[in-house]
Amino acid sequence: MLKVIGVVLIVASHWASAQSDPMLVEKQRFAFTNYTTESGETLPEVQVGWESYGTLNEAKDNVILITHFFSGTSHAAGKYSVDDAQPGYWDAIIGPGKAIDTNKYYVISSDTLVNANWHNEQVITTGPASINPKTGKPYGLDFPVVTIGDFVEVQKRLLDSLGIEKLHAVIGASMGSFQALEWSVRYPDMVERLVHVIGAAKMDAWTVPALEKWALPIRLDANWNNGNYYDGERPLAGVTATMLNITQDAMHPKIYQASFPNFTVQDEGAKQDIRTLPAISQTLHQRAAARAQTQDANHILYLVRASQLYSAGMQEDLSAAAQKIKADILLMPASNDLLLRPGPVRAFAQLLKAQGKNVKIEEIDGIWGHLDGIFSIQTKAPVIAEFLAE
Amino acid sequence: MLKVIGVVLIVASHWASAQSDPMLVEKQRFAFTNYTTESGETLPEVQVGWESYGTLNEAKDNVILITHFFSGTSHAAGKYSVDDAQPGYWDAIIGPGKAIDTNKYYVISSDTLVNANWHNEQVITTGPASINPKTGKPYGLDFPVVTIGDFVEVQKRLLDSLGIEKLHAVIGASMGSFQALEWSVRYPDMVERLVHVIGAAKMDAWTVPALEKWALPIRLDANWNNGNYYDGERPLAGVTATMLNITQDAMHPKIYQASFPNFTVQDEGAKQDIRTLPAISQTLHQRAAARAQTQDANHILYLVRASQLYSAGMQEDLSAAAQKIKADILLMPASNDLLLRPGPVRAFAQLLKAQGKNVKIEEIDGIWGHLDGIFSIQTKAPVIAEFLAE
Repeated sequence: MLKVIGVVLIVASHWASAQSDPMLVEKQRFAFTNYTTESGETLPEVQVGWESYGTLNEAKDNVILITHFFSGTSHAAGKYSVDDAQPGYWDAIIGPGKAIDTNKYYVISSDTLVNANWHNEQVITTGPASINPKTGKPYGLDFPVVTIGDFVEVQKRLLDSLGIEKLHAVIGASMGSFQALEWSVRYPDMVERLVHVIGAAKMDAWTVPALEKWALPIRLDANWNNGNYYDGERPLAGVTATMLNITQDAMHPKIYQASFPNFTVQDEGAKQDIRTLPAISQTLHQRAAARAQTQDANHILYLVRASQLYSAGMQEDLSAAAQKIKADILLMPASNDLLLRPGPVRAFAQLLKAQGKNVKIEEIDGIWGHLDGIFSIQTKAPVIAEFLAE
Repeated sequence: MLKVIGVVLIVASHWASAQSDPMLVEKQRFAFTNYTTESGETLPEVQVGWESYGTLNEAKDNVILITHFFSGTSHAAGKYSVDDAQPGYWDAIIGPGKAIDTNKYYVISSDTLVNANWHNEQVITTGPASINPKTGKPYGLDFPVVTIGDFVEVQKRLLDSLGIEKLHAVIGASMGSFQALEWSVRYPDMVERLVHVIGAAKMDAWTVPALEKWALPIRLDANWNNGNYYDGERPLAGVTATMLNITQDAMHPKIYQASFPNFTVQDEGAKQDIRTLPAISQTLHQRAAARAQTQDANHILYLVRASQLYSAGMQEDLSAAAQKIKADILLMPASNDLLLRPGPVRAFAQLLKAQGKNVKIEEIDGIWGHLDGIFSIQTKAPVIAEFLAE
């Protein structure tokens, strides 16, 4: 899943700008030492950024954890300053009086390990671009592979540091849904509710190569240099191609048609010279290149890998993993999602029902495809509010 | 669309091997001089390969033209020798007593301009890898952009050279459907029947960037060198990535699941080192690298462009173009096609019906997705036979 701020937000921007009196938020830093990854290597230091909305009550039992998507960050809601162009990605449902009501709940969100937005000054993460204390240089590809399980473990330590022992809910979209589900399987006594948006329970023989397609262009860029580019030119051409691939996978043809109503197939520039891209590809390329500026190429490779290795409970047997869940479950696939398709989520709902779990499935309709989990989420605000109140 | 010979043909291979007594075919060469492209440049010489099945009758009115898909060639049916591993791609429906019955029809098929399979010794084509007579060196990116209209014009000259003035039918899959439709719009008095398989009538704001994704990895490969690689290393890494992208787009998740029943998400190699691809991606990469050997990178870029510029009649107004058609029309989208999706074809059928055309739509069901137009075509053999007999 991706952050398409600055992409084709014609449809989405009007509801964002309807907001007034923005909820102001501040990035915080959580650091700890000696974290051993699931792949078995020890990182001397880990730090991640986090933010929160609302107030932690005395019993510390009003906590909702939001886990972010592939291209996302901990910035789920609010603005850093009143003149911020855009609020956090789920601002439509997180805030005072909204579906995830910050008058009631203490909402917390953290940057994952290997967050891709390394060059976004509001992001704090630990990954291949971080300095390896042993060498004084960036880890590069010596950084260990990390998993969705690791993302959850880092969040667990953050919550531990705040004395939080109970989660009213864990809610995440796309790669965030993997983390939310992992929380429910791994810490069943801690998680009371799970909201799993545009997600999956397990990667399969199609999704793994689909995700690999996002890594491929980076490896092709000569500047990538096997991950050793921190002293030289960044592999921006490769990252730009990756951004184009992600956009293409995350959006349904319908949103392309709606966003480019004046599209012309008989493109004279493209017909006259093979070196001239079709006008629509030029536009998309410029937007992707702008997005690439905030990204670290190696971090993307690690996020791809973390996603590829995901199955609930980090185990092969989905049924055995699901059996551990004690939370009430709300599954929200997007009907037009071409990336994490609704079919497998419907099958997962059946599996959970057969196990006697309290599970609801509510499909998000829209023309965005995968991104309906972000840009059409407000259509399901009442469903989410009701689920959280039950 | 692509030729996946050597890819995941578990499902398809059994019907191919059921053939006995192969129809033996021979490649022929058609050459002519001074062809002016639709982009306005003149090629001093053009040559393309072609093959035929069956016998041209005296009236020369039993001709069926087959137009090939993106990664295809003129090898639509038969074998070059008895020990050929695979017959032509539509051998299931072309041959004596088959749906396209070579006891009745003279079936002819030619390599397009800029055919991608430059290193396949059975392919004859003219494109950027061809020698520019003016310089004695390969054209490279100085080769003019060519269009689906140009492909049709070259086929027209081939038919003219054989004295053929009437087509009983034109039949093509995917990019072949573009050519078949273009024939019907451009030469309405010549084309009696049109069979349009897994096709489209017009590229749109989604398909143009989707196709650009196939060109991107080639441009990223340093060996590509702005198209000037004919004296050096070929950009095989880029072409391999392109082959992976094409495979991913042309096949539905269902065929991936069916082809890799032992897929394991908890991949220990991939978990231990970021440099190790998941096992499934290693397998797909090896197959793509093998396919890349026969391909010319620049030719792929030109095929992408020709496809991107396609709209029926090479004009913006689809309705006006369709109005010109006199042929009976059989549209055959694949229900699970994720590349040239069935929705726009259904809409095109409505448009044709509203114009009073004799049009039928028959959807191909299967788990291949786009490739059902090749590997499941035999399920529609009776429909095709009946349409050709009417």
